[in-house]
Amino acid sequence: MYRSHNCGALHAAHVNKTVTLAGWVQKIRDKGFIVWVDLRDRYGITQLVFDEERTPKNIMEQAQDLGREFVIQVTGTVIERASKNPNLPTGDIEILVSELNILNAALLPPFTIEDKTDGGEELRMKYRYLDIRRNPVKKNLIFRHKVTQAVRTYLSNEDFIEIETPYLIKSTPEGARDFVVPSRMNPGQFYALPQSPQTFKQLLMVGGMDKYFQIVKCFRDEDLRADRQPEFTQIDCEMAFIDQEDILNTFEGLTRYLLKEINGVTVDKFPRMTYDEAMRLYGNDKPDIRFGMTFGELNAVAQHKDFNVFNSAELVVGIAVPGGNSFTRKEIDNLIDWVKRPQIGAMGMVYCRVNEDGTYKSSVDKFYDQNDLAKWAEAINAKPGDLICVLSGEAEKVRPQLSALRMELAERLGLRKPNEFAPLWVIDFPLLEWDEETERYHAMHHPFTAPKAEQIELLKTDPGAVKANAYDLVLNGNEIGGGSIRIHDKATQSLMFDYLGFTPEEAKAQFGFLMDAFQYGAPPHGGLAFGLDRLVAILGGQETIRDFIAFPKNNNGRDVMIDAPAPIDDVQLEDLNLKLNLKS
Amino acid sequence: MYRSHNCGALHAAHVNKTVTLAGWVQKIRDKGFIVWVDLRDRYGITQLVFDEERTPKNIMEQAQDLGREFVIQVTGTVIERASKNPNLPTGDIEILVSELNILNAALLPPFTIEDKTDGGEELRMKYRYLDIRRNPVKKNLIFRHKVTQAVRTYLSNEDFIEIETPYLIKSTPEGARDFVVPSRMNPGQFYALPQSPQTFKQLLMVGGMDKYFQIVKCFRDEDLRADRQPEFTQIDCEMAFIDQEDILNTFEGLTRYLLKEINGVTVDKFPRMTYDEAMRLYGNDKPDIRFGMTFGELNAVAQHKDFNVFNSAELVVGIAVPGGNSFTRKEIDNLIDWVKRPQIGAMGMVYCRVNEDGTYKSSVDKFYDQNDLAKWAEAINAKPGDLICVLSGEAEKVRPQLSALRMELAERLGLRKPNEFAPLWVIDFPLLEWDEETERYHAMHHPFTAPKAEQIELLKTDPGAVKANAYDLVLNGNEIGGGSIRIHDKATQSLMFDYLGFTPEEAKAQFGFLMDAFQYGAPPHGGLAFGLDRLVAILGGQETIRDFIAFPKNNNGRDVMIDAPAPIDDVQLEDLNLKLNLKS
Repeated sequence: MYRSHNCGALHAAHVNKTVTLAGWVQKIRDKGFIVWVDLRDRYGITQLVFDEERTPKNIMEQAQDLGREFVIQVTGTVIERASKNPNLPTGDIEILVSELNILNAALLPPFTIEDKTDGGEELRMKYRYLDIRRNPVKKNLIFRHKVTQAVRTYLSNEDFIEIETPYLIKSTPEGARDFVVPSRMNPGQFYALPQSPQTFKQLLMVGGMDKYFQIVKCFRDEDLRADRQPEFTQIDCEMAFIDQEDILNTFEGLTRYLLKEINGVTVDKFPRMTYDEAMRLYGNDKPDIRFGMTFGELNAVAQHKDFNVFNSAELVVGIAVPGGNSFTRKEIDNLIDWVKRPQIGAMGMVYCRVNEDGTYKSSVDKFYDQNDLAKWAEAINAKPGDLICVLSGEAEKVRPQLSALRMELAERLGLRKPNEFAPLWVIDFPLLEWDEETERYHAMHHPFTAPKAEQIELLKTDPGAVKANAYDLVLNGNEIGGGSIRIHDKATQSLMFDYLGFTPEEAKAQFGFLMDAFQYGAPPHGGLAFGLDRLVAILGGQETIRDFIAFPKNNNGRDVMIDAPAPIDDVQLEDLNLKLNLKS
Repeated sequence: MYRSHNCGALHAAHVNKTVTLAGWVQKIRDKGFIVWVDLRDRYGITQLVFDEERTPKNIMEQAQDLGREFVIQVTGTVIERASKNPNLPTGDIEILVSELNILNAALLPPFTIEDKTDGGEELRMKYRYLDIRRNPVKKNLIFRHKVTQAVRTYLSNEDFIEIETPYLIKSTPEGARDFVVPSRMNPGQFYALPQSPQTFKQLLMVGGMDKYFQIVKCFRDEDLRADRQPEFTQIDCEMAFIDQEDILNTFEGLTRYLLKEINGVTVDKFPRMTYDEAMRLYGNDKPDIRFGMTFGELNAVAQHKDFNVFNSAELVVGIAVPGGNSFTRKEIDNLIDWVKRPQIGAMGMVYCRVNEDGTYKSSVDKFYDQNDLAKWAEAINAKPGDLICVLSGEAEKVRPQLSALRMELAERLGLRKPNEFAPLWVIDFPLLEWDEETERYHAMHHPFTAPKAEQIELLKTDPGAVKANAYDLVLNGNEIGGGSIRIHDKATQSLMFDYLGFTPEEAKAQFGFLMDAFQYGAPPHGGLAFGLDRLVAILGGQETIRDFIAFPKNNNGRDVMIDAPAPIDDVQLEDLNLKLNLKS
């Protein structure tokens, strides 16, 4: 052992003790006759002192030659500091060094190892091992560990069994693209990396393991948007002999436990909202309910005048911005520009100030009188001092637009408090969604999701209206988990594959083993998967998942530290029975 | 919830209670006027009873139509059994059924769902989801979960942080073959799946996370021998600011904890043995020390007579088989045949009976008198009643041959008791091993292993003699873990790559990021990885790792249940910029 204590352990009670520490040189202050060195390890920082009078000359010289990030081992005596640092757990003491051993020298790091570093994202990723020395990254990784330990403890205590499912599985054309893995032993054949252990966990249910979970890597070869990773981690769960209510209660229990254990926050029963209600009230299937600003629909009270923009719209809908009447004209114009940006895509925005005296001043005063505007205010639940913002157009477009505005305003107004937690179940998702591009229905969750039993007949006449036993767990405006009750009989599963455009042959080739399994006594079952990366980030009061991953990839799917992916040599390709086929 | 209790929960105290159970039909006994059904779930078996007098007619008929493995839900009253079954936790009671709901019918399973099934290996693998319903498989999976939970609890309490390292990394030509993953977004480039997180855990040490662990899948595209899997799980660990002694103590602590928690076995301090000693005493670097039969070298006492077989041998070495004097001539001839099989490869075997009266009878009495044989017996530590078995030849060949014989005899004599645990550290492994095929030295552990500091000079003159700070943890004759102290400076690492035949360019291309990292303040570090699959199997008193994996692959690397690997379609290949290049 290179140390008797770590760099966060010593305090006044250790004075006069001889100790050995090891760590990295954080900072050196050399006054000539006295040298202070901040020594850092995972646990903290301890101040070392070397001085002309008490330190042997050769050690004094060694100390003066140290550089930032040198790895050293020192032995010395704990002494009381003349000027204490109340901000540091070890701030009452310092170590008068009697032995100094340089374990490894260090080049000057390409960025400062400080909480606020001068290193940009790209540089920090290239030298991620140095970035991890910084408190914010280090703390996030330790935090992630605590969350996963808590998840495992809770679920194990609830009799869930963690079972490892295979990583080398079979490619399926459904959904996002698989990463594939050529098999050397089976020429011309490929494994695929799992997008999720979905079918395996269902087979475990058929196998009688009625409470399964796994914290597991999943893979998706998608074009990456900001803050998506080609490999990501799920808390994957499944239960048998349960209905939706059991799933919601079980995983509400887990989430409540995490909020309590990790964040010290007690949350009562999680509210529930149907998908339709979420869309109507928030324009969004993962609403942030930490603040109000719910949608008010104005068709009834705004389509009776000559304002054609509203009259021709499928939906006229608004929100009340609390205190927004204090916005300047310029600020409001800026909001209008914001909703008109191509990323949002609104044609414009109508607004109405609600004055403290109860009068109104709108951008459409030409068409609407005080009486009309009072009705708007009532529909939207606007109070004196608020600003009403109204968008109009096709319902499918205008809802997400107003939702984006709502979130933007909440951000600007500081309503999205990172340490406030507002979980929400969104239930009764549609079973299918129409895909414009392929002109057919896709499974909204996945093709194993059970339609509401009473709506199976509706599949034939109005498939888009069929709701599923599917649910999402939303936390602070982020989907942190989602799942469904599954189909567990071959007939319904075949019907579903049929609706999704699989031929019976395709269904058999891809999922024959699952359909077979359903014939050998499959129990009713369902489950849920949490996106661990996002869950951890949100519990940590942040939103960037990259900051909670030890070695993340960039937006091109590259690991810039190890420089992967990379070409492989021809022998390896030949062994795999492959040739490159690059487009010129 | 489909049940009020599970099938293992009910006993006499529940009599007269109304309960609801759900599960699979294990067995039906239909006497016409009375039907008994054994209902099974993960937790146990409960007997259901239907009879003419007390059961409604329609339910009686339904019961008579049930088949094995039907999934049913029943409601009924707990009643005391007339004839109790003391072998079943629920054996005092049965359920008089009043409601029966068939949740899913089942085809007749292709093999019986019993502890001793009639299904062969291949069939059980194809229908693994049915195999998992069987107690032995189910128990093994639950056992595995308990072991991993215990590992995580212990290491977390010791301040280790579980950190996920990436699965999509970079291919390296060193060691066994990588599985590669073509990148669609980076045409012509490939990720590789990790054979271990070795370099990443070392980078975490450079990053200051001084106690790391991870239970993680690793991948090796090797020709598979029996009981090897292309994907396998490691408990991967690394520590910084430690020396070998700290690692041995830490992971001895973990192993002792597992033996206590999981097996209820208390083990004192683990013995340690050098690699050289293990080879000398057991002919094996992973000796099973649950029994004696250590090697005795006979060169000094057997090479002075006219027996040319011994005189020309580099090594004459024997073991004493306890009680082996009772072997018949035929049994001994059978042993001789056994060692001459090509898998073992001995030329023959000399034996010597040690009679109860202290006299000797050997197969080479022509050459050796009682006095000579007494010296053999002394060297081998043979007792009256034992049988001495002696092999001779090249030391490198004869040691593994005698080791194989020792293990075979121990097996036959019942000395390898599955519930006795004898851990052992084997230390001071050679740094390098000579590879006949490539005619150069390979790293015995891996190229990051540190040579013994005092032997670095010896690398130049006698590389084969250099020992490393490398160690294996052996349990009952199986290597369950292995590791080393790592090189942590660029100069030594460059030297090592040089000895291993890397050009500086190759070293830089493959491991440049690690060499770079070593320049930015790398602490002394080292670690160890356990093979989880084997560890679990051995703690479970078994040796076949496949029995402890939910969905294992066969010896051709195939998952016969999902039929993977499989061809992928041309569009997918084209997207990946690849073409098949099959040998005709």
